[in-house]
Amino acid sequence: MKLEPYKLQSLNEDQLQRHQQKFESVAAEIKNVDGLLQQLIDFQIAIPSWALGTGGTRFGRFSGGGEPRSLEEKIEDVGLLHALNGSSGAISLHIPWDIPQNAASIKALAAQHGLRFDAMNSNTFQDQAGQAHSYKFGSMQHTDKAVRKQAIDHNIEVIKYGIELGSESLTVWLSDGSSFPGQLNFRKAFERTLGCLQEVYAALPDNWKLFVEYKAFEPNFYSMTVGDWGQSLNYANKLGPKAYTLVDLGHHLPNANIEQIVALLLMDGKLGGFHFNDSKYGDDDLTVGSINPYQLFLIFNELIEGMNARGMNHASDLGWMIDASHNIKDPLEDLLQSVEAIKIAYAQALLVDTQELEKARESNDVVRAQEILQEAYRTDVRPLVAEARLRAGAALQPLQVYRSLNVRENLIKERGLKTVATGL
Amino acid sequence: MKLEPYKLQSLNEDQLQRHQQKFESVAAEIKNVDGLLQQLIDFQIAIPSWALGTGGTRFGRFSGGGEPRSLEEKIEDVGLLHALNGSSGAISLHIPWDIPQNAASIKALAAQHGLRFDAMNSNTFQDQAGQAHSYKFGSMQHTDKAVRKQAIDHNIEVIKYGIELGSESLTVWLSDGSSFPGQLNFRKAFERTLGCLQEVYAALPDNWKLFVEYKAFEPNFYSMTVGDWGQSLNYANKLGPKAYTLVDLGHHLPNANIEQIVALLLMDGKLGGFHFNDSKYGDDDLTVGSINPYQLFLIFNELIEGMNARGMNHASDLGWMIDASHNIKDPLEDLLQSVEAIKIAYAQALLVDTQELEKARESNDVVRAQEILQEAYRTDVRPLVAEARLRAGAALQPLQVYRSLNVRENLIKERGLKTVATGL
Amino acid sequence: MKLEPYKLQSLNEDQLQRHQQKFESVAAEIKNVDGLLQQLIDFQIAIPSWALGTGGTRFGRFSGGGEPRSLEEKIEDVGLLHALNGSSGAISLHIPWDIPQNAASIKALAAQHGLRFDAMNSNTFQDQAGQAHSYKFGSMQHTDKAVRKQAIDHNIEVIKYGIELGSESLTVWLSDGSSFPGQLNFRKAFERTLGCLQEVYAALPDNWKLFVEYKAFEPNFYSMTVGDWGQSLNYANKLGPKAYTLVDLGHHLPNANIEQIVALLLMDGKLGGFHFNDSKYGDDDLTVGSINPYQLFLIFNELIEGMNARGMNHASDLGWMIDASHNIKDPLEDLLQSVEAIKIAYAQALLVDTQELEKARESNDVVRAQEILQEAYRTDVRPLVAEARLRAGAALQPLQVYRSLNVRENLIKERGLKTVATGL
Amino acid sequence: MKLEPYKLQSLNEDQLQRHQQKFESVAAEIKNVDGLLQQLIDFQIAIPSWALGTGGTRFGRFSGGGEPRSLEEKIEDVGLLHALNGSSGAISLHIPWDIPQNAASIKALAAQHGLRFDAMNSNTFQDQAGQAHSYKFGSMQHTDKAVRKQAIDHNIEVIKYGIELGSESLTVWLSDGSSFPGQLNFRKAFERTLGCLQEVYAALPDNWKLFVEYKAFEPNFYSMTVGDWGQSLNYANKLGPKAYTLVDLGHHLPNANIEQIVALLLMDGKLGGFHFNDSKYGDDDLTVGSINPYQLFLIFNELIEGMNARGMNHASDLGWMIDASHNIKDPLEDLLQSVEAIKIAYAQALLVDTQELEKARESNDVVRAQEILQEAYRTDVRPLVAEARLRAGAALQPLQVYRSLNVRENLIKERGLKTVATGL
Repeated sequence: MKLEPYKLQSLNEDQLQRHQQKFESVAAEIKNVDGLLQQLIDFQIAIPSWALGTGGTRFGRFSGGGEPRSLEEKIEDVGLLHALNGSSGAISLHIPWDIPQNAASIKALAAQHGLRFDAMNSNTFQDQAGQAHSYKFGSMQHTDKAVRKQAIDHNIEVIKYGIELGSESLTVWLSDGSSFPGQLNFRKAFERTLGCLQEVYAALPDNWKLFVEYKAFEPNFYSMTVGDWGQSLNYANKLGPKAYTLVDLGHHLPNANIEQIVALLLMDGKLGGFHFNDSKYGDDDLTVGSINPYQLFLIFNELIEGMNARGMNHASDLGWMIDASHNIKDPLEDLLQSVEAIKIAYAQALLVDTQELEKARESNDVVRAQEILQEAYRTDVRPLVAEARLRAGAALQPLQVYRSLNVRENLIKERGLKTVATGL
Repeated sequence: MKLEPYKLQSLNEDQLQRHQQKFESVAAEIKNVDGLLQQLIDFQIAIPSWALGTGGTRFGRFSGGGEPRSLEEKIEDVGLLHALNGSSGAISLHIPWDIPQNAASIKALAAQHGLRFDAMNSNTFQDQAGQAHSYKFGSMQHTDKAVRKQAIDHNIEVIKYGIELGSESLTVWLSDGSSFPGQLNFRKAFERTLGCLQEVYAALPDNWKLFVEYKAFEPNFYSMTVGDWGQSLNYANKLGPKAYTLVDLGHHLPNANIEQIVALLLMDGKLGGFHFNDSKYGDDDLTVGSINPYQLFLIFNELIEGMNARGMNHASDLGWMIDASHNIKDPLEDLLQSVEAIKIAYAQALLVDTQELEKARESNDVVRAQEILQEAYRTDVRPLVAEARLRAGAALQPLQVYRSLNVRENLIKERGLKTVATGL
Repeated sequence: MKLEPYKLQSLNEDQLQRHQQKFESVAAEIKNVDGLLQQLIDFQIAIPSWALGTGGTRFGRFSGGGEPRSLEEKIEDVGLLHALNGSSGAISLHIPWDIPQNAASIKALAAQHGLRFDAMNSNTFQDQAGQAHSYKFGSMQHTDKAVRKQAIDHNIEVIKYGIELGSESLTVWLSDGSSFPGQLNFRKAFERTLGCLQEVYAALPDNWKLFVEYKAFEPNFYSMTVGDWGQSLNYANKLGPKAYTLVDLGHHLPNANIEQIVALLLMDGKLGGFHFNDSKYGDDDLTVGSINPYQLFLIFNELIEGMNARGMNHASDLGWMIDASHNIKDPLEDLLQSVEAIKIAYAQALLVDTQELEKARESNDVVRAQEILQEAYRTDVRPLVAEARLRAGAALQPLQVYRSLNVRENLIKERGLKTVATGL
Repeated sequence: MKLEPYKLQSLNEDQLQRHQQKFESVAAEIKNVDGLLQQLIDFQIAIPSWALGTGGTRFGRFSGGGEPRSLEEKIEDVGLLHALNGSSGAISLHIPWDIPQNAASIKALAAQHGLRFDAMNSNTFQDQAGQAHSYKFGSMQHTDKAVRKQAIDHNIEVIKYGIELGSESLTVWLSDGSSFPGQLNFRKAFERTLGCLQEVYAALPDNWKLFVEYKAFEPNFYSMTVGDWGQSLNYANKLGPKAYTLVDLGHHLPNANIEQIVALLLMDGKLGGFHFNDSKYGDDDLTVGSINPYQLFLIFNELIEGMNARGMNHASDLGWMIDASHNIKDPLEDLLQSVEAIKIAYAQALLVDTQELEKARESNDVVRAQEILQEAYRTDVRPLVAEARLRAGAALQPLQVYRSLNVRENLIKERGLKTVATGL
């Protein structure tokens, strides 16, 4: 299903007057609104291909309808999101779920939708049909060299697909670890994993980045071989300048201060990218901003501070991606909500009076520092985000448009009620 | 595969002399060893039918071989465990995974293996093929009366199967809850769930118990409608005298003091049963005693104290069941380890000098109270547990026997390499 | 120091025009703004007397200056807060820190400041000079009857002081528990505690409420004898209709869903009151709304839903109190920030379209339910809260006024630089 | 009070026969018992001077009697512990609580008791009377250079005292951090702290080590400037070869896998030392082994594996220290229990069949790996630990001797009932 521009425009027009009132009211308080809006327009969040279908838990899966049945349909879905919100101009693929049969035509299709290919993702946490060796006991940590070789080869193959599509980064998330005390020699597991990563690193093109993602637990329940930011940074430091740490919001122990981790990784020039989602207990993979939106704002506050301090470009110098799973929501609606939450947090963080904040910090005025952050956070920035969408040719109210155009119903008509997205 | 008694006996004989030395050394320190051994012999732990196959996580499943393909084969597997350890004399079934086609013959088969049928388990957390209504948004909490009716009817059907098999209790674990703030009216969800449970309760035979199991999170990640012991107790109190709380060790928030919960439920006569497993992060469903064996001991210490205070029979007045999941271990080996850990903890707790402990408590001698507990815990009780097995006609070293008789290899020969246990 | 009304008025006038623009912009979207403003005006949060001085941690204390040296000065401080924000019209006393020498004159002084006396707080977690028995091993749980008697008598004495001052509730927070496995017989500790509470309950006037506060850990680090809402509810149910559970936001295990607890306690008519604060790790006692303001909003959403369902009066049918501790902020500034955060959350929750929310829930429209909550939460309600203050004769910007009038400097001049508030 | 050797000997003799039976029964199963016993004898755990007095919580303190009133008396107390258990042959001092007036005579006194001086501890988390600048907003992270200078100078002074006493390491624990979002620029705080540590590092003698201790939270409740092992390692790497990470068991987020951290720090040659204690919720500072003794065993298992892999000397190549706080136990009894728990865990870990374990790991035999660990853990090693004490000339049953000689009563007679140990 393709979104027809005139329909979007017509729906926007209905809301235009009310929007402009609100926008002007907020804009009046902001210096250089246009600059801020341009930053909002430029900020794109990649959609992972596997988030377009319904996720599940180990207890079961409740499939939805109209899910994409092919890589082409996944690109169409992201294209549709991007048409609606003007902020989803990239897709992140997962191999082997998304092997492009014809890279050139896939690239062309993506270009039609205004999409580029973000980080490629490899998979050594599941066994694929016909696979020579099992990952039951890990991949890069495995005691058997043949398994490790298979994992290395797979990652190099993923890079190859990525090159064809114009991607410039590889995200390695390893589920490697152990579920029982005694099972693993932690040191040797680290060293074997490092050895494998070094071989993958050696295969990286010069303009590529390697993102080493960490996770505290699940699917292993005693130890993870890339278990926290300290371990990931250790790997990245040992690998070299093209290796970076990737932060997924749901991959921490309870109560972790993620914003501080972000700041310290940026300090060392080793933050590579971000997987957005939200969670209450573990890697719950809930909609971004649905549980703790203030934390999201605080993270953006650190991102902006740290990137500005290094003269980095907000839009392009880190990898931004959603990584959520949608059991009980329409996946496309969920992604619209997630992108909206990210843009809101980014806009709020851009409003922080950083000079005043640093002054308050210098004088240990804790009350004032909190006021400055909350002044920005409590501002209703939705009109700013909507205006940025409008200027980008997208919808003022993406979710509303999605519903009023009956997108899901149309997708079900096209694709059927009992589709299952390729992949998870 | 059937364990031949003479083989067991022959293996026991090889170890007998060394065992007796160790046993006598420990026994010399214990008053009334025979009484203690009888308690160990009597204490049986039910095996859940779904633990006989390989479990999985939402990221995948790595199947093992020789898994039971039918209810009959599940009973055989539990029979084999029971022959080995003399402590697994019950099986807990799950409907619809274990619907008996012919209850009488199933009952007879179980009797041949010395097994009885423990609590029946219903399933309203997954959709079965051909099911009229989906449990995507819950079962007993559902806003749609038809869904609730379906869940009630299913539970009543499970009771019916249980009656045929001689079971006397129903465990209701509801995955009902919500994953996003706003999704659920907590109060109405509670009231609807209570209403459904009341109808199931009304269908219980007089000699049956209803176990209301609670869980803090997963598969719902914002709220659970039977989320903690306080909620479960609230349901049980409102339902009536046949309703009890069931405690699963992995269903708590981080750092919860489970042994205190056990003590308080016993105080109110509302503890119904137990699901044993171990975990580090969430409901990890690891082998019992593999992560925190001291906690297991402390729980048994409370169980014994509380049951004795009420004059309860350790073996029969609560429901004892394992509920674990085995991704990377042979399920039968894992169950042997779990049962062993439970028996060890029980034996240690039986050694606690309760009179001295109460004296230390009365005088606030905290150091002494700790010494008394650790005196029991640090004792090597394995010879006691082995002796109890010996007297019950089982193996001195069940795991060793299992391996030396190549049980798994034989099961694979019988059943094939790529079986998947019915159910999960 | 007394706030002169004309100064307040003059400062308000400077900001009036800008305020009115903002207010009108928000008000235009709201039905029955006046009703909503009246609810905001009526909603008062009690200030605990111990929050007026600098708190500390076990590692040390960094005192501030100008802290109140007497009960009279504490009342003046709360009066000052109330003059500034019009929302702190009550004070919660703690015995023995705030024993009134002359109840009548204290009452008169409070009345001058427009203050009433909220819940009285007893203290059996510390030993006072000259005290006959020590609370080292607990108070109401203690094995020694004399200690329990002392704790009962103290609570009855607190009630007596409360009657003289016009208070109508007693909050009992017990630090009772144990720090080591074995130390305590959980059941007997519960029963002894219940016995003591029953004696205190018997001494309550008919129009009084007894609040049983729970806490998961600290200062005991293995078990707490009133450890969670389930235990507190159990006590309250056994005590009778005048006993209620009191929820302190910081007294939970990691990741607890407090809003659900609130909803379920309201369902059973057993929620008595609230202690507001915020925290990241434990009972951190940080400024309300400084860590997770969305959680605060979700809690208010449940409070309003549950109170409305029972026809309760928001302002008067529950006890609302701050319980925070201020190590590195000026205590009065901290309290102004806390009250502001509470009013903001309350205002946001009042904006929730509850009818639409229930409709979304009935149809399991999870996306819509989240949108409805976030529509309210994302609204900038600060102009509404300011307008309510204005109508109540208080400051548009309390914190700004506090600073521009140099309140702290004046208090230091009056009271000295090295004062320590009576109590903690 | 001094322990008379003949009394000890006489008490040992009473227990000798029973001990020898038990010892021989365990020893029969062990290869090279004498080697193992020598390792147990050599393994000494330093006692921190502040653990000799009663600790407290922010809610209060319940002092005990007979606490040491001077550095000399602290040394006497540790000497007494060492005489009893033969394993407490070192003391760890804290400046300014333990400033030696005459280093030579203090050294001589310690030598009389067979004690050496372990790591020195500095204190920049409290303000001392007469101190020029306050640490209210941190020390080495402070925005004010004068505060940082004061913290540097203090640490250099601590080194100076340590040199005089023969210590060879400095432990720096910083409580620096923030309690509110916005308060701190994380990056600048890290950089300022690093700058200060570099100046302290420059003042270290060549044979000294600098231990950088980390802590997740408390007394700051939003961020800590040395918050986890990743940050500590980052500082240590940037400082140089004499800087190491120090692990305190209670300084982690919930559910952290500490044993893996230990293994990875050892891998990089950056583990410096250990603070032993136990906890359930946070930095509870409970008796070692009182909450989770299996975790302690697993940590020792990693320590031994990692130290052996690097050819390190167990007894001398890492710093071993207890860091606990005793609110409701006699501090000396608590320390006896803690040392006993450490020795037991160490003995159990020495029994692990490491060759078989590595074989099981190589072949992914998870069940066997667990069996090997638990085989060691379930062994009753108390007779081994007692035998090591006996051979070292200490008590078979230290706690029993302590009580039967009425040590505390004698200390109270000597020092009075209402003493407070210098320091905390």
